[in-house]
This record gives sequence, C-alpha cells and structure tokens, in this order.
Amino acid sequence: MKRQTIKEILADYKKFIHQDITIQGWVRAFRSNRFIALNDGSTIENIQAVVDYEKWDEHLIKNIKTASSLKITGEVVESEGKGQAVEIIVKKIDILGDNFSEEMEKTVLQPKKHSLEILREQAHLRFRTNLFGAVFRVRSAVSFAIHQFFNQNQFFYINTPIITGADAEGAGEMFGVTNFDLNNIPKNDAGEVDFTEDFFGKKTSLTVSGQLEAETAAMGLGRVYTFGPTFRAENSNTTRHLAEFWMVEPEVAFNNLEDNIDLAEDFLKFVIQYVLDHCKDDLAFLDKRFAEEQKQKPEKDRAKEGLIEKLEKVVKSRFKRVSYSEAIDILMNSKENKKGKFQFPVEAWGADLQSEHERYLVEKHFECPVVLFDYPKEIKAFYMRLNEDNKTVAAMDVLFPGIGEIIGGSQREERLDVLQQKMNEMGVDQEELWWYLDTRKFGSVPHAGFGLGLERLVLFVTGMTNIRDVIPFPRTPKNAEF
Amino acid sequence: MKRQTIKEILADYKKFIHQDITIQGWVRAFRSNRFIALNDGSTIENIQAVVDYEKWDEHLIKNIKTASSLKITGEVVESEGKGQAVEIIVKKIDILGDNFSEEMEKTVLQPKKHSLEILREQAHLRFRTNLFGAVFRVRSAVSFAIHQFFNQNQFFYINTPIITGADAEGAGEMFGVTNFDLNNIPKNDAGEVDFTEDFFGKKTSLTVSGQLEAETAAMGLGRVYTFGPTFRAENSNTTRHLAEFWMVEPEVAFNNLEDNIDLAEDFLKFVIQYVLDHCKDDLAFLDKRFAEEQKQKPEKDRAKEGLIEKLEKVVKSRFKRVSYSEAIDILMNSKENKKGKFQFPVEAWGADLQSEHERYLVEKHFECPVVLFDYPKEIKAFYMRLNEDNKTVAAMDVLFPGIGEIIGGSQREERLDVLQQKMNEMGVDQEELWWYLDTRKFGSVPHAGFGLGLERLVLFVTGMTNIRDVIPFPRTPKNAEF
Repeated sequence: MKRQTIKEILADYKKFIHQDITIQGWVRAFRSNRFIALNDGSTIENIQAVVDYEKWDEHLIKNIKTASSLKITGEVVESEGKGQAVEIIVKKIDILGDNFSEEMEKTVLQPKKHSLEILREQAHLRFRTNLFGAVFRVRSAVSFAIHQFFNQNQFFYINTPIITGADAEGAGEMFGVTNFDLNNIPKNDAGEVDFTEDFFGKKTSLTVSGQLEAETAAMGLGRVYTFGPTFRAENSNTTRHLAEFWMVEPEVAFNNLEDNIDLAEDFLKFVIQYVLDHCKDDLAFLDKRFAEEQKQKPEKDRAKEGLIEKLEKVVKSRFKRVSYSEAIDILMNSKENKKGKFQFPVEAWGADLQSEHERYLVEKHFECPVVLFDYPKEIKAFYMRLNEDNKTVAAMDVLFPGIGEIIGGSQREERLDVLQQKMNEMGVDQEELWWYLDTRKFGSVPHAGFGLGLERLVLFVTGMTNIRDVIPFPRTPKNAEF
Repeated sequence: MKRQTIKEILADYKKFIHQDITIQGWVRAFRSNRFIALNDGSTIENIQAVVDYEKWDEHLIKNIKTASSLKITGEVVESEGKGQAVEIIVKKIDILGDNFSEEMEKTVLQPKKHSLEILREQAHLRFRTNLFGAVFRVRSAVSFAIHQFFNQNQFFYINTPIITGADAEGAGEMFGVTNFDLNNIPKNDAGEVDFTEDFFGKKTSLTVSGQLEAETAAMGLGRVYTFGPTFRAENSNTTRHLAEFWMVEPEVAFNNLEDNIDLAEDFLKFVIQYVLDHCKDDLAFLDKRFAEEQKQKPEKDRAKEGLIEKLEKVVKSRFKRVSYSEAIDILMNSKENKKGKFQFPVEAWGADLQSEHERYLVEKHFECPVVLFDYPKEIKAFYMRLNEDNKTVAAMDVLFPGIGEIIGGSQREERLDVLQQKMNEMGVDQEELWWYLDTRKFGSVPHAGFGLGLERLVLFVTGMTNIRDVIPFPRTPKNAEF
C-alpha cells in the first residue's frame, strides 16, 4: 500500500515537514472557511488542512461540508495552532464525494451529539463517528491479540461448524436452518415435517458452541482454539444479550483445571495489555468519555477507577482463586445477605450464583478479578469433570468488575464410564454424540478449555455499557437490519 | 504453558540431552515391545521413547497399543537409530487412556491406510492422522498469516452479520434462518407465512457475503477486512463446493482497481511465503504425498512441479495482468479452441469464462498466476464500477494453476446515479439496500475490495484435491454430521 495513512503521518510527522503529501478522507469539521479537519479512519486523530480561501473557487469552498470526502495535496508544515503538531498547507483539492446536505440532516453524520439508540439505527454510518471508530478499532485489536496469543503459544486455529445437526449440548435455544419453502413444507406420512427432504437430510440449527467439536480436534492437535460466531434464539431484550455474537474457545489436551485457570488469566492479561499498548489514542478518547459518563451518575453508582486505570490494574493483579464453597460462605455471611440486600438471598450450598453475587465478590469483597471453581455438579453441564467428592465438578468462571462472568470453562470428563453416567442422569442423547464419546474410547486424555464471549471483553475494554454498541451489526429480537 | 511440546523439544533438542523430561501424547506405533513413537499434535514428527520391557510389568506393556495415550518421563539421549536425533529412555510411564481395541478396528485409528472418504465419515478422528494433522496445522497457519498481513497493513478486522435480512446481492441460494416450529408456522390473513411473528420480525437468511456491510465500514475506518463463515444452499455435490465455508473480504477506501490487484498479489504471496517459512515439516510431508499421488496418474495428467516448488514459484512470479478482452482474443485464437477441444467453445466477446478457459490461460498460455480485469458488465455484479467504455466493469479475478479462480473482486461503483441505474437494470431492490446507497450519498469515495475463499487457498497450499478435506467438519448436501 503506497498511500500514507493519517496515522502514519502523525506518528512520524517530522519526516514529512516541508514535503508535499496527498491525503484522502472525510471532513469532520470545516472552520472559518479555512481549517479542514480530515479523518481517514486509520486513527481517531484528524489532520488539519489549511485552505487560503481567497485563492480558491468560491463554489469549491462552498461544497466542502461536514462529511464530504476530499483528496488533498499540500505541504506539511509545523502548526502554529494548538492541538496538532503539523498541518497541511493545501495546494490542490478534489471533492471526491458530495454530501446531500438535506438528506444528511436526517443522519447521524450531522455535527451534533446523537444518542446511542439513534446511532444503532444507522449502524452503517456509526463507523464515521469518533466513538464508534474507536470502539471498532479496539475490537479489531482485541481480535488480533487473541489470535496472536494463541499462535505464540502453539495453538492451532480450527473452524468448528456453524450449521450443526447436534442439539445435545443444550446451552440455549437454537435457530433452525432450513432450505424449505416455509409456505410448502414436505410432510411425512405421520403428518410431520419431513426433514429427510431438507438440504442436509436432517434437522439442522445454528451452533451455540464449538466446544464439543474443538475437543475432538484437541485430541489430535493438542492445543486448539475456535473463534467464530455463535447464536442464541433467546427472546432477551437486554443490554447484555445478542442473538449472534463471537466466541473464543480454547481446548487443551493434558490440561487440568489449574492449567485452565492459568491459561485464562494469562490470556486475558495478554489481550488487555495488547490493547493498552496498541490503542493509546482510542483508549484515551474512551477513557475521557467514560469519566464524563461517570459524572452524570449519582455518586454512589460511579466507578471507582478510570477506564485505563481499571485495565492497568487488571493486568497487574493476581486473579483471586476461590472455590465455590468458600464463595458461598463469604456470601452467606456477608452483611448484604444478612440485611436482605440481595434480590436473591443466598441460603445454602448448591445455589446458582446470580450476577449480583458475582459482582459483590469482585467489586466489594475481593476488589480484583476472581476465579471461582469446583461448582456443584447439578448446576453445570454434563461434560465437566466430576471431582473426587462426587458433589462438585472441575468448573471455573472468571469474574470481572462491572461485567461479572467473562469466561466460563472446565476440565472435561475424560473417563468414558463417568461421562456416560452423567449423560444418562442429565438426559443427554448418547447416540447423537457417538463421535464425542469416541474420543473417550481411543486414547482419552485429561483436557480442559473455556469460552470467552468476545463482546463481553470488548465492553470491558471500551467502557461501553450496551452490548449492541460493540458489534458492528447487532442481531436482537425483531432486529436484523443491514 | 509450562509443559514442553514435542515440537519444542525436537526444535532445540541439544538443550535437553541428559535431562529428564515429561511428555504426553498418543502412540502412533509400538515396535518390538520397545520403541514407542509418541505424537502430541504439536508437529507431524513423533518422539521415540525406548522402553526396556524386561523392567516393566507385562500387563502395562501389553496395554500400550496404537492410539493409546501415555504420559512418559525419561532421560533425553542422542539416538543411535536412524530417523531421529534424540530419543527418551523411559523411567516412568502412565497410560492415560486405553483404547477399546475391538471397537478401534472399526475406526480410522487402526494402523493402515484409509481412503479419504472413510476418513471423512470419521471427521472427529481425522485430526489424529498424519495427513489431516498436517492439513489442519497448515490451515491454521494460513488463517494466522491472513490476520497478520492485514494487521501489519493497518486494516481493521470487522465482523459482518451472519444472519441477514438482506437477500439482494444474489450471489447464490440462501439458507433460511427461523425460530418457527416448522410443524406450526403462523400464517397471516392471506394464508402466507407471517414472518413478522418470527424471531427477527422478518425473513432472515445466512449470509453469502459480508461485502456490502464491509463497504460501509471501509467508508469510516478506511481499510477493513472480514474473515468469517459464508453459506450457499446449492445442491452441488462436487469436490469444489461446500455449503459452509470461510471467506476473507478486504475492502479499502480510496483504492482503485490497480491498487486492488496489487493488494491481492501482495496478500497471496505473503500468506504463501508465511506457510513456506512456518510449516516446513508439514509441507515436506504434503509434498511427498503429492509426488506419490502424481505417480498414480497417467503421465499427461501429472503436475509439472512438486508442491513446494509450485508454492515457491508463485511467490517469486509476477502475476500476469491481462484484460478480459485480451484473454478472449487469446482463447479464440488458441489451438484448443480451433480444434474444438474446449467443452465450451469461445465464440465471441461477452462470453463468461469457464474453468477450462481459466486453466488454459494459467497453465498453458502464461504458465503463471494470471489476473483478468475489465469484464463485460453483463456477467458481473451490480456493485462493480462501470468503466468509461460503458461496456465493461472494473472487475478482477486472480487465477491460480490447478485451482482456477482463487480471488474475485472489483472497484466498487461509488457514483450514486450510476449505481442506481445499474440496480434498476439488474432488478436489485433499492429500498432494501437503503443503507448501502447511503454510503454513496454522504461523502462517497472510490473504493475496492475482493473475496477469497479460504478453503480454495488451503487446497492450493496443501495439494489436496477435495475441498471437504481441508475444513474440519464439511457441510454438504445431506451431510451435517458432528
């Protein structure tokens, strides 16, 4: 790519002083018919181009508006104004694309503050705002850091199927995938839908997790991870739920629960440190926005730390590792519980933890990320390894401040007989999962893995609060626009 | 990760001589009750562990079988045997997982050569074979190289929606996504399916391309790429078609067609060079396999070059850039065409090129990768930029030896009026694509992009011939097992 981005020019501006350069981008602001703030998406920073309007055709100057796209050639000089080190003295200017000003009044491109709701309705234009430019550059950096971490730790990236014939895991309601004309569905003699006539010859759905398939891959390749879209057909209209989201699922042969927790901690710290190192400008912007948001809140609801401060603290902290049983004791004996301040009082060992309990542990009791492990077997999935106490399984959840659960994982049950008994008890179809059971028959090995919802992590890193604002085109009940 | 992989040990074996190490893996072979070849998936290479069987419990030795999983501790010594630099003198041995020998007879884990068809039926066990271990490690390296290339060229990774309400692009038949109980679909007063009652309140499908959404992102972020699953509900049972496959789609603001071709060429060379540099062992294995396959063929059908030789040649070559019109001339005047050797004779300008024509150009005429550009507008999609001749569009296809089209792309039509006219002519719904048109209204800019099918590239790099063998769990008509 021969063209220089604004990011490259600003990062190394001394090299360009008194040289002519060409830049292309969109007008963020045009002040006094003289100062154009141009942005090309490579960074949140604009470059200032200075037009001597007396030298230029009036018509041209009139057509330079917010959101217009320009190609500018000019000389880079040190800036006398505040806020930028260099600016460009314009020698040549081309308008690449007009804006249709009247229609623009209806868009989020007009220069004023828009609510996040309105921005969501114009998701295709969000990329051109400072806020969403920052969010999606950070999301990209998070994604790259994830690949980088696993690659340098000798993991292999594998793609597990999106369309699946299995619905055994029961992690949530699934979307159906079909090639049928819904106005004309073939029926069998019993009057039921004849799925043998469908594209795949059986009922198929969108995956809720690639874990079981990833386990089969780990049983050959050793260390693997998935990173792809997953789906939940849950009718939840909240700030935490998406019908379509991206999930990361490492799976490691020979790892036990402790290795799994170590991996999760190393992984999260690596990704957050990567963002701190590589997204300084965007984080500075998001940090400021976060601070302003906090000011709007009543004092008691304000975050104790700034955004960047919070990220740096997580990287430096040692995650506190606490068994479920210890956590229940802490919760049962807490003032909050005794005074009836929890919406769901913690009454006995065996209770499933709610978000309020997780946040109490993280934000009030330990004041650092917490890893809970060894949960009651009844509240966890069939594939988690049964501990020797016969009551708990080798599960682990990583809890983060402000977010709650950010990672959930476990050591997997590698013993065929124990697994089969678990499946019987929990009503999981063994015939359908014949291939999963196979991996326990031919050289089964201890192994462990976890799942991370990408959007949860991006929420944490950007300080955004609605999950719809950290994925380019959110899919939610009654909403599949774009 | 504290544990050493076999890859790490073999790569730096001198460091480990006379040290005790612990390795875990699966038995690939056990010869003479003495030599265990152990593999842990980190590399195609095994490590040899030597057991002095007289020292060990007979029962234990008897249970070490092909496909068993072991944990071995022992001393690393220089090997006297051929084929390995070091071996391990076993001091401690644990069987982690038995194999159920009788059942194993039915699997592809038994030590003999299996057909690729049989291996496909046991896709969950393919990861444990040398061939598929190599293929999926290479696939992983290709994927990482793709992220690396774009990241170092300042692209942002964006996730375009998998579930889409748009079906305007018409790139192929789409799978429906629904939350309806197909036995009980709500109908409206007209007796038709009432999609307002479905999860998203409208008819939704699985995406065939993220391009249009990626364009909106490029109009803000500058350089973006997608890398995710795409779908075709085409009933094609061939070695080249999958119903679910992974696609890479960069989209770059301010790029014209030539920039786009430069990007495609740089990109492909980077990825192939990355694999040459990082997958030496696996490529050596695949190269040998490729050579053996060629020997089975009649001489006239054999590849001219070895696998690695082919890859090195592509990296060193300059891709030949040829306009569609020139290519048609070459084809019309070719001996093959005149002698009626093409299944589809090339008769006039305007004809769509078939695979046989593409391969003639690449393999016979130019003998190097070829980029065709400026195609007749009638045979290309509505969004491609109309050239000044009013007859052709700024499209480009990259053609590779043995594969044909590996990349297809274009400069996009950024002029609102021309785009709208094109959409009218080709019957593309403008109302549905209101958001796409918006990007041409508010600071439209020239831009270009392309699509690469990941599996096509992995086929090329591994020398495999059936696309089902380069994706872990292939989805094809009547097949969605696992």
